[in-house]
Amino acid sequence: MKEINYFLGYPDLKIVQNKDYFKFSLDSILLANFVNINPSYKNILDIGTGNAPILLVLSQKTTANLTGIEIQKESYDLAVETIKLNKLEDKITLINKDVKDYYRESESDLYDLVVCNPPYFKTENASHLNKNLNKTLARHEISLNIEDIFKITKKLLKNKGIISIIHRPERLVDIVTLMRQNNIEPKRIKFVYPKKGKESNMLLIEGMKNGKPGIKVLEPLYIYENNEYTKEVIKYIK
Amino acid sequence: MKEINYFLGYPDLKIVQNKDYFKFSLDSILLANFVNINPSYKNILDIGTGNAPILLVLSQKTTANLTGIEIQKESYDLAVETIKLNKLEDKITLINKDVKDYYRESESDLYDLVVCNPPYFKTENASHLNKNLNKTLARHEISLNIEDIFKITKKLLKNKGIISIIHRPERLVDIVTLMRQNNIEPKRIKFVYPKKGKESNMLLIEGMKNGKPGIKVLEPLYIYENNEYTKEVIKYIK
Repeated sequence: MKEINYFLGYPDLKIVQNKDYFKFSLDSILLANFVNINPSYKNILDIGTGNAPILLVLSQKTTANLTGIEIQKESYDLAVETIKLNKLEDKITLINKDVKDYYRESESDLYDLVVCNPPYFKTENASHLNKNLNKTLARHEISLNIEDIFKITKKLLKNKGIISIIHRPERLVDIVTLMRQNNIEPKRIKFVYPKKGKESNMLLIEGMKNGKPGIKVLEPLYIYENNEYTKEVIKYIK
Repeated sequence: MKEINYFLGYPDLKIVQNKDYFKFSLDSILLANFVNINPSYKNILDIGTGNAPILLVLSQKTTANLTGIEIQKESYDLAVETIKLNKLEDKITLINKDVKDYYRESESDLYDLVVCNPPYFKTENASHLNKNLNKTLARHEISLNIEDIFKITKKLLKNKGIISIIHRPERLVDIVTLMRQNNIEPKRIKFVYPKKGKESNMLLIEGMKNGKPGIKVLEPLYIYENNEYTKEVIKYIK
């Protein structure tokens, strides 16, 4: 069922959702706020844009051209409606395509920044794939795994361009290894913890195409304290 | 100048130090407490044992045979005195040798656990190497770099054996990449922060020889809060 929601943290923005497909999650908001926007950026790409939550946040932070690619027609349609509703058609371009096709057809060295909130779950580990194909594609590494992401990014990023993704900490070693294999040097990482005393359950990581070795591990981000959002999370959503 | 100190956290233990050489630091205590000791462990090796702070802690936690290798005669002599003073000669064996020579001469698959608090600073980056050779060797990657550590560990560890080290977060990507290149899979990591609001300045990491991929990122450890040691640190040293 389709619904129009206020977009948390941005009273002037609205987002079109459909609970039968995939609603935007806190992950996207965390990633959009982890990204450092350089005023010189001209072109930014969001891979797997969903209903465009990351692009909505970025539209408030940069004058760069924003492009979102979404493989699923239903999510793409929600994104198109969202962009129209917010009158952001001049700033945001949406493409309904498999990013692997886009990658093959595209010129190289196009983007200053690529962001991606990818499907998290390794297909081989998925105990019961979601019966709703739309949700399954969005959550599992069926159409896009992390190796694909960095291979694609290596081509699409300009020299010294930045890729920022959010993923699961158990994939940390795969992520940094695959980044390096694709000439993307991990530069900043932030671990997200559900609350104090727990292991990390998300990581935010940024790499630079042809960057020099040396990574900064930023202060941790906790989501909950005493069953309520922490101040840092509230800062992003209120 | 040589002095005998009480060993923080262990009222029954003493440690022989010399402020002209290298005194044990909090790093060693953090590493010794990060390690999980399995009751089945038979042989444990400490690479670059200094005046033996890690072995002192481990001697209170395991019945395994403990071996420490130290290249520097002065530090080795302090370790020998320390072990005698604590009557731990039956439990701890000390070897005054370059671990690279030990590695070449040694059989393989000897140890259940290897620990190492290695020299931290890349030699190429060292702006002014310490004039005291003993301190310089202990602090810089002159005699031992992280590539050496994992190459050595790959041979000396039993199948499914564990290596635990403490190092600088800026080397995270080098560390996990070199672990994998030597069939050591990173399994547990803990980032240490000087205090809230700061970047991490130390990491504790554990890998398993021939382990399966998948790493846990443990809760962070803060050293100071309001200019005093945090409860977690005090737990280790009092």
